[in-house]
Amino acid sequence: MSRVYLDWNATAPLRPEARAAMAEACDVIGNPSSVHAEGRAARMLLERSRDQIAEALGAAQADIVFTSGATEAAALALSGQGLACAGIEHDAVRAWADETLAADPSGQVSVPDPARSTLQLANSETGVIQTLPQGLAVSDLTQGFGKVPLAFDWLGVEVGFVSAHKLGGPRGVGALVLRSGVDRAAVLRGGGQESGRRAGTENLAGIAGFAAAAMAAQRDLAHGMAEKLTEMRDDLLMRLEDADGNTMFPGRESQRLPQTLSVLTPGWKGETQVMQMDLAGFAVSAGSACSSGKVRASGVLRAMGVAEADAGCALRVSFGATTTRQELDRFADAWLAARSRWQGKHGKAG
Amino acid sequence: MSRVYLDWNATAPLRPEARAAMAEACDVIGNPSSVHAEGRAARMLLERSRDQIAEALGAAQADIVFTSGATEAAALALSGQGLACAGIEHDAVRAWADETLAADPSGQVSVPDPARSTLQLANSETGVIQTLPQGLAVSDLTQGFGKVPLAFDWLGVEVGFVSAHKLGGPRGVGALVLRSGVDRAAVLRGGGQESGRRAGTENLAGIAGFAAAAMAAQRDLAHGMAEKLTEMRDDLLMRLEDADGNTMFPGRESQRLPQTLSVLTPGWKGETQVMQMDLAGFAVSAGSACSSGKVRASGVLRAMGVAEADAGCALRVSFGATTTRQELDRFADAWLAARSRWQGKHGKAG
Repeated sequence: MSRVYLDWNATAPLRPEARAAMAEACDVIGNPSSVHAEGRAARMLLERSRDQIAEALGAAQADIVFTSGATEAAALALSGQGLACAGIEHDAVRAWADETLAADPSGQVSVPDPARSTLQLANSETGVIQTLPQGLAVSDLTQGFGKVPLAFDWLGVEVGFVSAHKLGGPRGVGALVLRSGVDRAAVLRGGGQESGRRAGTENLAGIAGFAAAAMAAQRDLAHGMAEKLTEMRDDLLMRLEDADGNTMFPGRESQRLPQTLSVLTPGWKGETQVMQMDLAGFAVSAGSACSSGKVRASGVLRAMGVAEADAGCALRVSFGATTTRQELDRFADAWLAARSRWQGKHGKAG
Repeated sequence: MSRVYLDWNATAPLRPEARAAMAEACDVIGNPSSVHAEGRAARMLLERSRDQIAEALGAAQADIVFTSGATEAAALALSGQGLACAGIEHDAVRAWADETLAADPSGQVSVPDPARSTLQLANSETGVIQTLPQGLAVSDLTQGFGKVPLAFDWLGVEVGFVSAHKLGGPRGVGALVLRSGVDRAAVLRGGGQESGRRAGTENLAGIAGFAAAAMAAQRDLAHGMAEKLTEMRDDLLMRLEDADGNTMFPGRESQRLPQTLSVLTPGWKGETQVMQMDLAGFAVSAGSACSSGKVRASGVLRAMGVAEADAGCALRVSFGATTTRQELDRFADAWLAARSRWQGKHGKAG
């Protein structure tokens, strides 16, 4: 039986459109900064990709600065800004912001001073979607872009950032999105690329793949993908729920990403579940990938008020456009069997 | 007639080995930080690529930190170090170093205090190769790697950095090379990737392409590529030289990269030559690509003592493994014809 990949929030499989665009970009041999015909062709591909991503983001009036990923874009957006954030933010945000905002048990964050704060659009572990306040300084749009309809120009946010590989583009590409008139000083210096905001020869294959994936994701959304995945997610939740309420679903009372489910069974460690499911043929995770290896309780759930012992017992199931109902059913079967075994060993009702 | 691309120092055409490795890496769907089978497969590809690049670099005893290119690696290597550099360095180095070292007219730089200095291995415009002093703090190896034999472990340099796309890998990938025991603080923060030295999900396709290109370049070097290209370069120089010595070749008295020729004809602007050659079907450049658009005299040649008016009259011809003698001959024919026309208009001897 083939394996089932349910860790799309760590990285999504590459979309075929992205693969094709990357292969085409590999044939464009110029440096986008060169003035000869080959350079101009590379520049044209770069700018076409930028336009496509702006369109997919609903950011026609914003500036798009390409980076090596959301982490670099976060550094550009946040370093030196001294913004406030909540504990549910990704480590790449928390590295640059002061953790002074609180999340409530449903995962919602209230922001008293939007102009001095950063708040994510959607959480990678729980899928909880925030209502972003008008005038917000910075928003991490990484997990929302391509999964829910998004129009940057209407968000009322000054600066956003996104990643390609969360929506089916290649790993190692992202972008900073600046509302027209807003600017940031370059972190990487030395060349005049990206209007002086980010030096270095552009990752043309990656950028072209990003643009193709973003357009494909938008097309999926226009064709009801979010509704379809929400139904699948809700069906999965119902299957995993048990009569005694031993298993919980952090954030379930909030509006969430259609394709993310956080499943918490107190006493049953998330890392153990990940290993058991891996052996059974399913790729899931216990939290965000970049902190894997380090075994620790989820900072996201801790920030939502979950006790430390319980926060180590969450499993994240995340999927996407090519995931089938059959795959989720197989996962539910395997996971329920594993939970029964675990409950049997620990003397809990099955 | 097909176009002839002679701007390899701006960016080299992608090697077929790199293209194949990138396509394969696109099939590896995991995040290298994930602990499940898909994540471990991605991690294995990442670490195999790292080993291959270390082998090609002769850096078995060094640490390789992957970045989005040489520009980012330069920032990691140089920011906050307060090192001395010469004016022949790339803008991505000059952005972080104090320009207090002098180059002589042959392009050679002497370094009184290697431990507090940075010096490139080879120059992108003239191809001039430096003899790096023992104990040098940082060296930009970007233009040398893959073009001349190189063994980082024997260089006596603390920190080096390289780029994939200068040796036939993809644009947007590079690496920092740290002698064992040397470290640098992360510029990009938030995840534990690259042993905490560089956060962000790794550009797996790009890194795999980089490794394949580096191995292919090493194989070419082992089979006499440098010798072959040196002969081609010297033959080209002889064809472009004129009896009156109006045309000069900056750096010609120095050891140089095999495949780089700087051609300076006082009074005939480099940018004009680039446009004329572009129309005639040849991609060449007037200096490094990242400062194209800005029309200005070459900082490299100015630092070698060339007068400002003359420094604006240089043309860089750079080529590589797949360039043929016939292509260089066609270029020489076209360029000599253009020079004759220019000399005719300006009343100089033809």
